[in-house]
Amino acid sequence: MDADVELATLSSAQCVRLMAGSTVGRLGLIVDGYPLIVPVNFALDRDVVCVRTHSGSLVARADHANVSFEIDELHPADRTGWSVLVRGLAELVTPAHDADLADRTRSSGASPWAPGEKNSWLRIIPHGISGRRIQHDEGSGWRLGTAAYM
Amino acid sequence: MDADVELATLSSAQCVRLMAGSTVGRLGLIVDGYPLIVPVNFALDRDVVCVRTHSGSLVARADHANVSFEIDELHPADRTGWSVLVRGLAELVTPAHDADLADRTRSSGASPWAPGEKNSWLRIIPHGISGRRIQHDEGSGWRLGTAAYM
Repeated sequence: MDADVELATLSSAQCVRLMAGSTVGRLGLIVDGYPLIVPVNFALDRDVVCVRTHSGSLVARADHANVSFEIDELHPADRTGWSVLVRGLAELVTPAHDADLADRTRSSGASPWAPGEKNSWLRIIPHGISGRRIQHDEGSGWRLGTAAYM
Repeated sequence: MDADVELATLSSAQCVRLMAGSTVGRLGLIVDGYPLIVPVNFALDRDVVCVRTHSGSLVARADHANVSFEIDELHPADRTGWSVLVRGLAELVTPAHDADLADRTRSSGASPWAPGEKNSWLRIIPHGISGRRIQHDEGSGWRLGTAAYM
């Protein structure tokens, strides 16, 4: 640890801007008592994270469950980076939903990399968003680590 | 989705090699009913993931809980990448542990980026390890996505 390193908290607005600039993140969901982490392609509908998936998947099983969604940019070589974490409720889009909401979700732009039919959409309604980075005192760079979330 | 994309499963040996070549990953832990995702610096002691942290942290609270640990390399520009996920039991190293195990953990090399005292060590004893990638039929590259874990 360097003496010139300090923690910094990102504002909600900064977190949302970083989310808007990303296309890949990691979905956290509880399956069989484990907090699994699954890389996913995503897009934003306002502050809602939209993920396209297929019906039988683990992701689809997260419907109505508490989930999290994380993005980060970590550079091990110079130990710089940042991360943003969303906690929220996962909700599958169904025919019972408002048509406008379903349309907005489908046109959000989330496009899976993996093969297979992706007929289901998962929306993550945020309960909270937080982000952290670690800053050098001299402001020459940012560093991030475990303590950022402690 | 491209017609020439297919899923591939990584062997346990491939997963461990990718872990051994990484220094930063993401710890998944359940806190207040949410599956949180926390970037951490780590090192391996054989197949055990070692994370250094401080006593009052979220990470330290994961003692004796089911956790997960994820590493990945995702390239949005060309939609290539891979990811590895460990499911396991988190255990804080205490004076009750075997001295050799404690020594091996402390000398594993995990070095936090964040400031502050880091007096606690967390070991993640693996229950299972899996990894996925998405492959072009022609073998010219790899792609990864949601369905890799489905």
